[in-house]
Amino acid sequence: MWSYQAPVADMLHLMTRVLDAPASWAAQPAFAALDADTAGQVLEEAARFACEVLAPTNAPGDLAGCDWSAEGVRTPPGYAAAYRAFVDGGWPALACAPDAGGQGLPQLLNAALFEMLCAANHAWTMYPGLLHGAYEVIRAHAVPALRERYLARVASGEWLTTMCLTEPQAGSDLGLVRTRADLAGGAEAANGATVTVTGGKIFISGGDHDLTDNIVHLVLCRLADAPGGTKGLSLALVPKWLPDGTRNSVHCDGVEKKMGIKGSATCQMHFERAQGWLVGEPNRGLAAMFLMMNAARLHVAMQGVGHLEAATQNAWRYAAERVQMRAAVRPEGAAPAPADPIAWHPAMRRILHTLQARTDACRLLAYWTALLLDEHEQHPDAKRRAAAGGHVAVLTPVAKALFTDLGHRSADEALQVWGGYGYVHEFGIEQTVRDSRIAMIYEGTNEIQAVDLVQRKLLDDGGARATALIALLAQEVAACRALAGLQPFADALDGQLQAWRDAMAALLAGRDADPDWPLRVADDLLHGIGHALMAWAWARIARATAQPQPSAVAGGRSPAQWLQSARFGIDWLLPQAQVHWARAARRDAVLPWA
Amino acid sequence: MWSYQAPVADMLHLMTRVLDAPASWAAQPAFAALDADTAGQVLEEAARFACEVLAPTNAPGDLAGCDWSAEGVRTPPGYAAAYRAFVDGGWPALACAPDAGGQGLPQLLNAALFEMLCAANHAWTMYPGLLHGAYEVIRAHAVPALRERYLARVASGEWLTTMCLTEPQAGSDLGLVRTRADLAGGAEAANGATVTVTGGKIFISGGDHDLTDNIVHLVLCRLADAPGGTKGLSLALVPKWLPDGTRNSVHCDGVEKKMGIKGSATCQMHFERAQGWLVGEPNRGLAAMFLMMNAARLHVAMQGVGHLEAATQNAWRYAAERVQMRAAVRPEGAAPAPADPIAWHPAMRRILHTLQARTDACRLLAYWTALLLDEHEQHPDAKRRAAAGGHVAVLTPVAKALFTDLGHRSADEALQVWGGYGYVHEFGIEQTVRDSRIAMIYEGTNEIQAVDLVQRKLLDDGGARATALIALLAQEVAACRALAGLQPFADALDGQLQAWRDAMAALLAGRDADPDWPLRVADDLLHGIGHALMAWAWARIARATAQPQPSAVAGGRSPAQWLQSARFGIDWLLPQAQVHWARAARRDAVLPWA
Repeated sequence: MWSYQAPVADMLHLMTRVLDAPASWAAQPAFAALDADTAGQVLEEAARFACEVLAPTNAPGDLAGCDWSAEGVRTPPGYAAAYRAFVDGGWPALACAPDAGGQGLPQLLNAALFEMLCAANHAWTMYPGLLHGAYEVIRAHAVPALRERYLARVASGEWLTTMCLTEPQAGSDLGLVRTRADLAGGAEAANGATVTVTGGKIFISGGDHDLTDNIVHLVLCRLADAPGGTKGLSLALVPKWLPDGTRNSVHCDGVEKKMGIKGSATCQMHFERAQGWLVGEPNRGLAAMFLMMNAARLHVAMQGVGHLEAATQNAWRYAAERVQMRAAVRPEGAAPAPADPIAWHPAMRRILHTLQARTDACRLLAYWTALLLDEHEQHPDAKRRAAAGGHVAVLTPVAKALFTDLGHRSADEALQVWGGYGYVHEFGIEQTVRDSRIAMIYEGTNEIQAVDLVQRKLLDDGGARATALIALLAQEVAACRALAGLQPFADALDGQLQAWRDAMAALLAGRDADPDWPLRVADDLLHGIGHALMAWAWARIARATAQPQPSAVAGGRSPAQWLQSARFGIDWLLPQAQVHWARAARRDAVLPWA
Repeated sequence: MWSYQAPVADMLHLMTRVLDAPASWAAQPAFAALDADTAGQVLEEAARFACEVLAPTNAPGDLAGCDWSAEGVRTPPGYAAAYRAFVDGGWPALACAPDAGGQGLPQLLNAALFEMLCAANHAWTMYPGLLHGAYEVIRAHAVPALRERYLARVASGEWLTTMCLTEPQAGSDLGLVRTRADLAGGAEAANGATVTVTGGKIFISGGDHDLTDNIVHLVLCRLADAPGGTKGLSLALVPKWLPDGTRNSVHCDGVEKKMGIKGSATCQMHFERAQGWLVGEPNRGLAAMFLMMNAARLHVAMQGVGHLEAATQNAWRYAAERVQMRAAVRPEGAAPAPADPIAWHPAMRRILHTLQARTDACRLLAYWTALLLDEHEQHPDAKRRAAAGGHVAVLTPVAKALFTDLGHRSADEALQVWGGYGYVHEFGIEQTVRDSRIAMIYEGTNEIQAVDLVQRKLLDDGGARATALIALLAQEVAACRALAGLQPFADALDGQLQAWRDAMAALLAGRDADPDWPLRVADDLLHGIGHALMAWAWARIARATAQPQPSAVAGGRSPAQWLQSARFGIDWLLPQAQVHWARAARRDAVLPWA
């Protein structure tokens, strides 16, 4: 049966031994009090919540789904109790500022927390998933009176939030949003102005539920005289219950029947002259929302890592238990038996090691991105902040698309380990396949991430961000070269970085003559860069095993096991990169009209 | 919304223009009366049934699922009526011999029929899916008295059949089967002997249902004194209702809750001294069953083609309708608009053409395999029969694994075209994703197909079968070389065949020193060969467009459209082959123990 044990030792190993996060924290006054032991305690506590409280609600919530009635949405049994425990534990405020009632811990720990939550129950995690983004939007853009009323309650999780963007005709293209905001009698269009909001929104996660007393909607809308397109969008805060205790005119008309995350209420929302207030300047709503969407993208990337871990650990456990046929080659000294664990069969060994090597690389990259995000926000050195910001800009769309792609694909490959049992609900892995699929779509489809990466992160600055990131990654080539036995890692990473440089140079030189070219190959560029980053991750993991001091993490994998997975990654998985680089380079390959 | 229009023009084009099946039929006395027009009429009739009768039951059947009670299984609304229409139309007997009441048409037409059925409703198609295999087993192995009683009723579909292999401990490993057959008092162990069967079977498709009055189970079981392993397995025919009208002691204890094909009753079966008769010699049950399993494997390959087609045509239609954002490059003369069809965006064009090129190649390969199967069974020239049999042996496991893999993956990629709507049940594509997943597992998982291919088809005869098939495929290289504009196809196919030859030579030379090597790379060999075969298909499709006579098929795609898809295949999809060939060649890549 499906289960989830949070891999705290692996997580700590990557944070402390491989990334040396404690050194980074020590350089940042906001985190100076944090050390590896404290981080370990936070993760242990988070693991207890995820595994003991949340994971048991995962399969039942998938079967029960959400109940809609005109009175509101009922979440699956156990969801509300788990949410109360989550708030009581102070988890929503983990990475919020102390002056807003938060614990002021790094994004890195928050990322690890949400990896565990998503692995334990993706559907449930949708409810608090947007809290931190909403907290940041309100903190950065709301007028003081609104901040006063909402910030602490959102930071603590007392009230949950939504992000109301999509309309039937406006999905990837938010310029087509029609929801209207009318200024209340005589009010001027300005930040904080009172408005009434009218329109319909779809695909609103947690649009209604029974987890909190109030729900704070952040709604993308258009003032009456606003220009068309994305430059005429404003952002309004619309609460379910108004400050005077009256019910606001925002209602859920129904919930979607979905492939997965069935415990998450995906709502059709209806605003009928609902009262709200502008957050941020008029017509600048998309800019304010982007703060939330960027946080959300890293958050979704962590969902990918969570699914990778859940698929990997369940596949390894089942393959060790299930016995079918004798293996052609058996481990030395294995006792005679009519049939062997399927983990001994080469086809299964390939799947199992593929899952483990991907999980290790993606988790390391995810944590590194979160660490850089902390440095970008908190580091005292302005140059360091700026450099970290540039790296995060490139890493975020790659992380979102690559990890969610691999999360879903890995769950799908893991299912194969169970054979027919994998197709049966009771064994749980098919739920992971279904749940993981949505992460490739929301917060910008993975194709949109690729376009964002190529147009706004790689090419818009003439390649400066990419060049800086490649230079940083290249330090790992030199470090591996200096150590015996790590040449294959140095060579593999070096080859990837050169391919990346070549692709950048070719695109920068050729894009004017053929402006469609970067778009034709955007997905290949993203996945080529994704493989280059995984090569870096495997090299860095391998190098950590060569360090003289013993592993700091008790109960974790041995250095030999880490090295074996990293080596599998460059030998068996990295060859895929050449297909992406070769396709990205072929300007003459015709992509016909459809 | 999801819909299915059978692509009869495409199907006929591949059969008649590309494969020239009518020439093959003319050479076989059994099919001498068949011509392209008659085949077209059969396909049109089949399309009418699939699209008008069957497709409307697809989405409702997924929602309703099967109802189990102690009295038996109830299939979803509409299933029984559709089945009666199917039997009344004479469809089960399409490819059965005239002396058994069949129409004596080629396997090729039967394959096309089942492609349509599966695209229209995979779950429903599970019920008649095993009929033809059971017909062949009974025809080839049952004693005359049993044949007399069951053959015509199975051929006509009056009674449906099952294939009872799997037990909880015996999935891929049938040697572990424990179900017992006891000879009735005094009977001798011989073909046709009366036995009582006792044991439990799981994952039995159509183990119980309300579509036919009787159900004929073919049960893998073990006589009391039989040896262990696969050499002690016998096959028994056990009907739900005995000839004297009494209910036999075989019961369905429950149905599985599955990821997909929810309208198909996947039954836990319980035999308690149920009466039956041996089919085939005692302890030779697996050999008899293999006849059924081989038919089933080609049948499952057609499911992959059906899913490919359903995903492709729905994605193309939706992408043409859905409007989001202006495309960076627009077709010449396109009118100004605030947003364009998403089919114009490069990322969507890549997905759409990927789906179309795969569908074309897999369908052609599937039909070619079926055509060769007909020649293997019916051709008057013994040498031709033997050669065709050798080709089919290699093609079958590749077709099963490649087409089902691509069927599922393509449905999953198609879902992305819908964005968030793709994740919602109502739009239908997520059902295709879930339904298509099972085909990678049953009738031998795709990993088992790869092992079968490498061990029993490629290496066991020193490479003779592969060499003969490669030589046949190489004729297409020469044919394309002789025509202007087809050099890229000739080069692409030539490269693939050389990679296949190199891989064969290396494995034949190295396997003794490292017997585990072929198993480590079996999946890569299968997919490398799969790509070589697709390269052949795209070349052959391209060459057909260069033939002087106009297309024989009205209403189909233009020669330019066929050529464009084939060219997309070699430019954008074939590069993936190099990863498989490179991994297959790397004997030194360590695959660690798990």
